[in-house]
Amino acid sequence: MNKSRIEAFSDGVIAIIITIMVLELKVPHQADIHTLLPLVPVFLSYVLSFIMIGIYWNNHHHMFHAVSHVRGSVLWANLYLLFWLSLTPFTTAWMGENHIESVPVAVYGFVLMMSGIAYYILARSLIRLEGADSALAVAFGHDRKGKISVVIYAAAIGLAFLNPWIAIAGYVGVALMWLVPDRRVERVLLASTGGAHAPKD
Amino acid sequence: MNKSRIEAFSDGVIAIIITIMVLELKVPHQADIHTLLPLVPVFLSYVLSFIMIGIYWNNHHHMFHAVSHVRGSVLWANLYLLFWLSLTPFTTAWMGENHIESVPVAVYGFVLMMSGIAYYILARSLIRLEGADSALAVAFGHDRKGKISVVIYAAAIGLAFLNPWIAIAGYVGVALMWLVPDRRVERVLLASTGGAHAPKD
Amino acid sequence: MNKSRIEAFSDGVIAIIITIMVLELKVPHQADIHTLLPLVPVFLSYVLSFIMIGIYWNNHHHMFHAVSHVRGSVLWANLYLLFWLSLTPFTTAWMGENHIESVPVAVYGFVLMMSGIAYYILARSLIRLEGADSALAVAFGHDRKGKISVVIYAAAIGLAFLNPWIAIAGYVGVALMWLVPDRRVERVLLASTGGAHAPKD
Amino acid sequence: MNKSRIEAFSDGVIAIIITIMVLELKVPHQADIHTLLPLVPVFLSYVLSFIMIGIYWNNHHHMFHAVSHVRGSVLWANLYLLFWLSLTPFTTAWMGENHIESVPVAVYGFVLMMSGIAYYILARSLIRLEGADSALAVAFGHDRKGKISVVIYAAAIGLAFLNPWIAIAGYVGVALMWLVPDRRVERVLLASTGGAHAPKD
Repeated sequence: MNKSRIEAFSDGVIAIIITIMVLELKVPHQADIHTLLPLVPVFLSYVLSFIMIGIYWNNHHHMFHAVSHVRGSVLWANLYLLFWLSLTPFTTAWMGENHIESVPVAVYGFVLMMSGIAYYILARSLIRLEGADSALAVAFGHDRKGKISVVIYAAAIGLAFLNPWIAIAGYVGVALMWLVPDRRVERVLLASTGGAHAPKD
Repeated sequence: MNKSRIEAFSDGVIAIIITIMVLELKVPHQADIHTLLPLVPVFLSYVLSFIMIGIYWNNHHHMFHAVSHVRGSVLWANLYLLFWLSLTPFTTAWMGENHIESVPVAVYGFVLMMSGIAYYILARSLIRLEGADSALAVAFGHDRKGKISVVIYAAAIGLAFLNPWIAIAGYVGVALMWLVPDRRVERVLLASTGGAHAPKD
Repeated sequence: MNKSRIEAFSDGVIAIIITIMVLELKVPHQADIHTLLPLVPVFLSYVLSFIMIGIYWNNHHHMFHAVSHVRGSVLWANLYLLFWLSLTPFTTAWMGENHIESVPVAVYGFVLMMSGIAYYILARSLIRLEGADSALAVAFGHDRKGKISVVIYAAAIGLAFLNPWIAIAGYVGVALMWLVPDRRVERVLLASTGGAHAPKD
Repeated sequence: MNKSRIEAFSDGVIAIIITIMVLELKVPHQADIHTLLPLVPVFLSYVLSFIMIGIYWNNHHHMFHAVSHVRGSVLWANLYLLFWLSLTPFTTAWMGENHIESVPVAVYGFVLMMSGIAYYILARSLIRLEGADSALAVAFGHDRKGKISVVIYAAAIGLAFLNPWIAIAGYVGVALMWLVPDRRVERVLLASTGGAHAPKD
């Protein structure tokens, strides 16, 4: 099966998710600069979620770049990932509107954690298809980064009830860890094709 | 006529349908976990509809994969399917907000049934174009699964007035029946091209 | 310049326009079937606009299919068309919510008329690029259908102040006239390539 | 890495941004033409932002047309641009609803200025990849137009507190300056391929 449509559909869903979050920035009815103040936590939640979704899109891009074909099981694993990502606008808005309180922050982290697990499942289902000695499998390896992220999310969810800011620090930490996109795949691919500047790669 | 733009347009519409449904999960104004309780039926309706739309996307993907070219009639049959699918966010939200009562559950099923019929019409118009001995025609066959779905929907709509939960059970049953994507097409195609791992399929 | 990105962008915008209109179907807060009654004119406006936007997408699809390359001027002519189409969700909702009164019906027709003119401008800018003896120019011809549509719209806008239903009848008439997609282009193209079933067309 | 997915994702996000702005045109509850009057500034803000986003899409289109491949750093520079563009619907609505007052007009300009800077960063990261003697680098040159725009935005933001209309005039001026799409890239590319009508360019 062709991978281009699953890429196009994922691009569409992720583009919508990342963009409709901005609709939660409710337009103030006054022109005063102070009316923007209550929007600051909503805005910061938006920035964090924009980066998170951006990371997922980048890694999704890298991962499918290394894939040659897909199967029905991959379509569903991909939809499962998109499902959890699609809940991000809701948890982002809830967290932002309530000025960083324990429950919304924990729920926000829960959706991030489930997205992380869904990404892992998707990667596994792609590696099963490509084979254990494929560029993708070598690049993905033990996915230490993915596993560490899930552990940090789980810890942060618990700690959110102690102090929501500790949890936020955990989420930001994971984001920073991933801001370097998944170069592993790129590196191995380049090595296997033997050139850094494949012209029409 | 090229099939890639009809695929791209359908991907766009379906991606939007599946994603804007989450906007119906209204963000609570408190941070309390109890404020999520009234959202549970809305959330479960969302999950069901996400799976339903996901099934349509998967099957649409499989079906067009087996198609070599399209005509004006196909564009309209496809738009007719997208029309009914586009009503899903409305019926999902109505059903969810009213905690599973007869009328919204029946209307929800009606839109599902019409989507099923529209999918059948689209498949027929594609088969007419491809020919009765095409891979698509062989794979689609008598479309027993599609016909059974429509019968279940019709029965469920009636039964919703007896007890909405019976209708819900019917919808979930149809979803489970389809969660295995339309492998028939994939199987026949693979057989005709003679290989399970067409590298750039 | 490659035409594929202008197609993809237009597909995206049109897909969003056709889908967000459904958000104007406000979810009723009761489960009663009677609560759907005030939605009937909104729903019928939605159906009419869905068909109208569907016609534009189909014709856009046919037209660009006959085009080999684009220029900066085409990008702007295309954006001008998308601008007028993007106002359709607003006029649709306004007309629907006010149960077919003169002013909203006239404004609805005005946006349709401007979209028709914008489509004509786009077609002209493409023909200028393709040349007067191109398949597109031959197929488009004098564009009688397009000119008649604009005349009907102009008349309907005026008549809306006499009786809005006459205007609605005019809009429906134009829609019926176009429901047969722009086969002219398809026909000429097929004639010039000499076959009705170009396999990977 | 393939550039087609970054184009598709950007097309998706920009298509959504340009289209959801129309949701801020709140549908009046009366059918009277006078109820449209308070919408006039919202509408004019919409027109201005539609043109601005249209300019970004056109230039993005031209720029990536001249690019042969992308890297991880480009993905992030592109996301950074999309982030600022995604704030446009918010600032547009805020400016429109408050009938052109100083603070919203200045904030609107600030987001435009940041978008301009982000576009410059993206162009630089692409040129770094393509090489200093690439068609893109030659075409982009010193980017006088881009730099002038940022200076005008900065001045307009300050002047908005004197008189918001001066700032608006500045924004309109920048838009007019760019309405001629970035032909520089097109021209150099055509020169280097030696023909004005590359058939399948």
